[in-house]
Amino acid sequence: MLAAVITEGRLEIAERPEPAPGPGEVRVRVAAAGLNAADLLQLAGHYPAPAGWPPDIPGLELAGTVDATGPGAEGWRGRRVCAIVGGGGQATAALVPAAHLLAVPEGADLRAAGAFAEAFVTAHDALVSQAGLRRGERLVVTGAAGGVGTAAVQIGAMLGAHPIAVTRSRAHHDALRALGAAETILADELADIAPVDVVLELVGAATAATSLGRLGLHGRLVVIGVGGGSRIEVDLLAVMQKRLHVTGSTLRSRSHDEKAEAVRAAATDLGGPWSRGELQVPVADGFPLAEAARAYEAFCQPGRFGHIVVEMP
Amino acid sequence: MLAAVITEGRLEIAERPEPAPGPGEVRVRVAAAGLNAADLLQLAGHYPAPAGWPPDIPGLELAGTVDATGPGAEGWRGRRVCAIVGGGGQATAALVPAAHLLAVPEGADLRAAGAFAEAFVTAHDALVSQAGLRRGERLVVTGAAGGVGTAAVQIGAMLGAHPIAVTRSRAHHDALRALGAAETILADELADIAPVDVVLELVGAATAATSLGRLGLHGRLVVIGVGGGSRIEVDLLAVMQKRLHVTGSTLRSRSHDEKAEAVRAAATDLGGPWSRGELQVPVADGFPLAEAARAYEAFCQPGRFGHIVVEMP
Repeated sequence: MLAAVITEGRLEIAERPEPAPGPGEVRVRVAAAGLNAADLLQLAGHYPAPAGWPPDIPGLELAGTVDATGPGAEGWRGRRVCAIVGGGGQATAALVPAAHLLAVPEGADLRAAGAFAEAFVTAHDALVSQAGLRRGERLVVTGAAGGVGTAAVQIGAMLGAHPIAVTRSRAHHDALRALGAAETILADELADIAPVDVVLELVGAATAATSLGRLGLHGRLVVIGVGGGSRIEVDLLAVMQKRLHVTGSTLRSRSHDEKAEAVRAAATDLGGPWSRGELQVPVADGFPLAEAARAYEAFCQPGRFGHIVVEMP
Repeated sequence: MLAAVITEGRLEIAERPEPAPGPGEVRVRVAAAGLNAADLLQLAGHYPAPAGWPPDIPGLELAGTVDATGPGAEGWRGRRVCAIVGGGGQATAALVPAAHLLAVPEGADLRAAGAFAEAFVTAHDALVSQAGLRRGERLVVTGAAGGVGTAAVQIGAMLGAHPIAVTRSRAHHDALRALGAAETILADELADIAPVDVVLELVGAATAATSLGRLGLHGRLVVIGVGGGSRIEVDLLAVMQKRLHVTGSTLRSRSHDEKAEAVRAAATDLGGPWSRGELQVPVADGFPLAEAARAYEAFCQPGRFGHIVVEMP
């Protein structure tokens, strides 16, 4: 198989032996693999893959067709799937635990599906399992134009919440409203909004200090991204008086069973809407595997709306 | 009845009309009322009583005997009780919703029981309902020599956790070990301990910044007191990577039903151990109602172990 391989801090395309699935695993013939910030961190040497995953092939998610199955996973053979993986997604074939697979609905584009799993499982886990977002609640999503952000706006709207999408420019406000944002504001305007119930913080310190202050009674701040800095001052008296919850997570470092549970929960809530065409995976651009390095460059450009995917030959 | 009354920022003893219990309420002939930091804040004009409670009579907890009952609360007549109240505890009689009462076990001293409810309901709510403390987990309690601290150490030990009591001096370490502390350390030593699962922060910024850093994977910081300052720097990347939870609360500001639920949960878990003499309410000193002002002075002295109570004639 061909794979994007990290070699001395650079990305090269190399031939690797085709992996064989073990018990409970499937091998996916990959069609597309979404790019995530963690891939760039890994390329820079800051975010090694967890144990048990390819250490030098980036890629935290993928979509494709199951072409081989290990014992106990036979039911997946031939099916179109997408998945979160601990690494190794940016290759023409990848092993995935069957428990981490999501079925790709008929009619959904496999290229876009390559960028579904990480964003939608992360956003669903953060909003539903961590924040306990409920109908009618006001939800702030910072970094709303990115992959997790566009997923979170849609999930918030699907749950009957009031998503307020926060971006750095107005360029994508119309698109965010089309995805279900009830309000669209600039990061500069965050300080002026009425109190909110949940903040999904995808940017970090740059907006977190302000978004934390906008939480009302029983407000929840869930931190998923800190690209904009990670240190903020927190007023513990406000935490007490408003009974706030501040939490955060990464998906990649979780155990096999924790990931399986997050995937199962997302599949339960999102499978139906996705199959009815109610969930969109906006793809800003795609690059063939041979030009994966260009995909990483595109990912770093500001002003992007939605995902960058690497497409397999 | 006689009551401690806040008059222009000072405490006076005044005669007030005896209150009559309404539906679901009882009147308690108060034996003793524990002092809390919130009483001092209220005296200083910073922490008004919530609506529906005496605005100028301090006292967040009490113990005594029910001498009158409203409709629906008849079953409590004549019983020895303690309770959290939104205010008004420091008087010879006080109205309490029956849903906020705890039965005082036979053999338990009513004077000490006057300082049971606020500390034990607060500590139980924080450790069990908020932090989800489990058997075998390492628990840090800062400000461990105070009322909530001594309750938390005992509840932690009762749950099979490993309570680490943190104080400003070593004077009370033997007493804390006798209450169930597995380790006793000074605040200066907090930075050197192995990772912990739960921190009950009763001091505030002075120790919170350090205690937050000692949390391991899935660690929970619950902030209940901020007398030592309220602003700390939080590293959101650590929150994400360790999947930390930072939360906090006050008991006083909660709704009637929320308080009833917290009282019920504490009574369920603590009623048995208290009746068997397994829970101690350390009383540092008691003052007659006529000298309530002296009780407030004593509360402010450093080096105290346990509670200050106001005793009724």
